[in-house]
Amino acid sequence: MSERTRITRKPDRGTDDPAALNSLLDDARVAHVAFVRHGYPVVLPMAFGRDGNRLYLHGSTGAGAFLAARSGLEVSVAVTHLDGLVFARSTFDSSMNYRSAVVFGHATPVPDNRKEAALRAVTEHLMPGRWDEVRPPSAKELAATTVLELPLDEVSVKVRATGPGEAPDGGEDHTAWAGVVPLRTVAGTPERSALTDSAVPLPGSVRSLL
Amino acid sequence: MSERTRITRKPDRGTDDPAALNSLLDDARVAHVAFVRHGYPVVLPMAFGRDGNRLYLHGSTGAGAFLAARSGLEVSVAVTHLDGLVFARSTFDSSMNYRSAVVFGHATPVPDNRKEAALRAVTEHLMPGRWDEVRPPSAKELAATTVLELPLDEVSVKVRATGPGEAPDGGEDHTAWAGVVPLRTVAGTPERSALTDSAVPLPGSVRSLL
Repeated sequence: MSERTRITRKPDRGTDDPAALNSLLDDARVAHVAFVRHGYPVVLPMAFGRDGNRLYLHGSTGAGAFLAARSGLEVSVAVTHLDGLVFARSTFDSSMNYRSAVVFGHATPVPDNRKEAALRAVTEHLMPGRWDEVRPPSAKELAATTVLELPLDEVSVKVRATGPGEAPDGGEDHTAWAGVVPLRTVAGTPERSALTDSAVPLPGSVRSLL
Repeated sequence: MSERTRITRKPDRGTDDPAALNSLLDDARVAHVAFVRHGYPVVLPMAFGRDGNRLYLHGSTGAGAFLAARSGLEVSVAVTHLDGLVFARSTFDSSMNYRSAVVFGHATPVPDNRKEAALRAVTEHLMPGRWDEVRPPSAKELAATTVLELPLDEVSVKVRATGPGEAPDGGEDHTAWAGVVPLRTVAGTPERSALTDSAVPLPGSVRSLL
């Protein structure tokens, strides 16, 4: 734990359990990557994947200047999973159940000889099973792709996973309901592209989401 | 549009439609707030709400140094909503459907005389209808709460909402399925707190989520 990953607010929500970090990363689909450009902060959503202790980031938006930094760029990456809404009998004690990781470090471009493996990790994170269902990336596609990597060394993980807490003397209305409404992300009906003949069956990667 | 909100990558995904921004903000529940501390970037998840052209941010994690900046802090705020997974017949053309806004500006603490209204906006954003179901915050609770506000003046919005695109000569396997799997967040069965008697009915704010 470094000075900047020390949790100062509600430290009881912090955890050093690597399983908590990995489970959160497995369940979330988007990372938010912050960096400093011309002295001001920028944050962008990116796809990500994980391989052991490495976080892979795959740019999707406005990442030009970002990805140009071949020598590494200091970043902070947040991955957050909202698990539920916490209804207390006061707005003050209302909350959210969530798991969140904040990573600090230098993101560097994945070298060419590991780029395909990194892309595989990102693809399999978002669409488990998909990599083996379609053709591999061509040399031209690989050359046109940048993936960044960041070691998961300096990480702060916070988890809130309980019902509402209330101060004992809050004067709450005891006729008000208190509890948790869990939230989860679900897949809807797959929408076949006109690229695909209607006789093509749903692949395993799609069926596993349903 | 400023230099830093000009979309350089896939500019066709940018939109200036205020309705797109407002709809995205209404549908998302977490904002990621980046700022610069001691020269390095920090990004944290926060709850948020909106009132017209103002974005309200309500700290939930490690926000001590952040919230201490009474004079305003330069931030970048991303709100992202993942709408679906886009399965192309190559990993290179696979993608995600999403809506994302990135806001730049100075966040300042909401003054005392507007703090309750700002908290109401945050609460009603996360739990519509809840504000009127429970007691209002006490003077002591208000004093213990910091809400930041940020004008929605410098904003970049990107939207991807289509099926897979593929280069015409990609050599795709035509027996592979292509399409979109939509994603949405749903509420599970409410979990009543031991604080609440089992005779207390589910309130409208919870029922509207189910």
